[in-house]
Amino acid sequence: MNALELQSFLRVQQVRVENLLRSRAEPLESSGAPVRLAEAMRYSLLAGGKRLRPILCLVFADTLMPQGSSMHVAEDAACALEFVHTYSLIHDDLPSMDDDDLRRGRPTSHKVFGEAMAILAGDALFSEAFVLLASGTEPVRSSLCRELAVSSGATGMVGGQVLDIAEDRPAQLDYLKRLHRLKTGALVRAACRMGVMAAGGSEDALARADSYGDAIGLAFQIADDILDVTGSAEAMGKPVGADAAAGRHTFPAVIGLEASWVLAERKVSEALAAVEPLEGKDGPLAALARYMVERNR
Amino acid sequence: MNALELQSFLRVQQVRVENLLRSRAEPLESSGAPVRLAEAMRYSLLAGGKRLRPILCLVFADTLMPQGSSMHVAEDAACALEFVHTYSLIHDDLPSMDDDDLRRGRPTSHKVFGEAMAILAGDALFSEAFVLLASGTEPVRSSLCRELAVSSGATGMVGGQVLDIAEDRPAQLDYLKRLHRLKTGALVRAACRMGVMAAGGSEDALARADSYGDAIGLAFQIADDILDVTGSAEAMGKPVGADAAAGRHTFPAVIGLEASWVLAERKVSEALAAVEPLEGKDGPLAALARYMVERNR
Repeated sequence: MNALELQSFLRVQQVRVENLLRSRAEPLESSGAPVRLAEAMRYSLLAGGKRLRPILCLVFADTLMPQGSSMHVAEDAACALEFVHTYSLIHDDLPSMDDDDLRRGRPTSHKVFGEAMAILAGDALFSEAFVLLASGTEPVRSSLCRELAVSSGATGMVGGQVLDIAEDRPAQLDYLKRLHRLKTGALVRAACRMGVMAAGGSEDALARADSYGDAIGLAFQIADDILDVTGSAEAMGKPVGADAAAGRHTFPAVIGLEASWVLAERKVSEALAAVEPLEGKDGPLAALARYMVERNR
Repeated sequence: MNALELQSFLRVQQVRVENLLRSRAEPLESSGAPVRLAEAMRYSLLAGGKRLRPILCLVFADTLMPQGSSMHVAEDAACALEFVHTYSLIHDDLPSMDDDDLRRGRPTSHKVFGEAMAILAGDALFSEAFVLLASGTEPVRSSLCRELAVSSGATGMVGGQVLDIAEDRPAQLDYLKRLHRLKTGALVRAACRMGVMAAGGSEDALARADSYGDAIGLAFQIADDILDVTGSAEAMGKPVGADAAAGRHTFPAVIGLEASWVLAERKVSEALAAVEPLEGKDGPLAALARYMVERNR
């Protein structure tokens, strides 16, 4: 799959995810939830974005699912992942955290709905993620709940955000890697793993999904840091240089731009090696891994 | 069970819950979570409190569990409920919400750890609740996750908090009932239901737990409102008159003090009728229901 084919593949997957998210968000309207809360949840959930986590989950499930099996559990998992990712973005943008006014080119939740409602919309999306995952009788759902809970919590995403806002962040590569392995990596890894779990994949496939997710999670973050230095506001959906302006350590700032590219490319190689036995040469997961560093070069 | 026996029963149950919470919170320390985050989570989790939700869950499970069965799932559920309740208190106290400086007689989380860390400690406790519930192979765990997720989300606890901070709150009994059925009632009902579910109770028992939880949830809130008017800061663990000062509608303000008592007592009667077939006359659940309105009379 070359870059052009991947673009078209991703567009198809994004439409697929948008449709799934709409179908899973629709019941909220008629659920008896306060109208303004449902609005705030939909505002952030349906604001576009790359949909990387649900796509990873679905592609791993597509790759490993026995032909003719139902994708329903994988689809619930994909949506639950994006619910959690969306909740984390809403909270990260809050005045007491990153204090961002723009997200995906639109005003952030607290700018539109106020700070209290933004916090609560995030909280409610988090609950809904587990409603989705836990509704159904398939035994794997409980394992999926555990995976999502661990990866989103104190030893995962939230732990990473704590490291990211800490005042005594050392400008060291090890710290930066740990921070991003928790803050973004944990949920990306979970996305890959949950796709395998939903498809009933083997322990070997699960371990490979784990390695792949870890590698592309880091590659993606390095590329994001590089974009923050070299990219355009349009490509980013947020102001350029925001990370540097916020006094945030980035890979280019800590190890230099060229070493950042080298590290990102090593991670891509690790990702390719992990998934080749699963999808053969040149499948979508390999193309996605290469895309992590190619999108802005 | 008279009031004195109930007091001693509740003390025993509270010690039981404290021990369970400590055992479930301990792994956090060595989990690789950022130290300050683990501290903030423990600070709020182990700050005492009535532990009403976990006690309800445990007592329902005690009542319905076949002799000799393991209470492990019920204990996980009890702790998960208190994790979620604690997270909700941390977020409710935030400057953009109720802006409270004191909780259970101690400075609130954001006063001690800062606003960002308080938000994240709440978020992480929410994740950990589902880690607890989903860790284990018992098939009921997935249903317990669903119950907790639904009751804590947009059509439950968070939805209630949204109604509570809305600017256009009508001073009407129906609105007040709906608000509290969501804000506190949903999780109290879930506590009762989850105890029954963990014990493998019947559909009839589940429906009775539901009615009981709904009735005492409302009775408890009415009593709390009455305490805010008539109680002492010591009994409340927060300043007296805080609700009224915050311009919050209370049952006494909307229907008067005497009608509030009458409503609370009717709810207690409903609760007693619901649980008598489960525990016989004069069991701990009946005593607890009576205690809801008697604690300050």
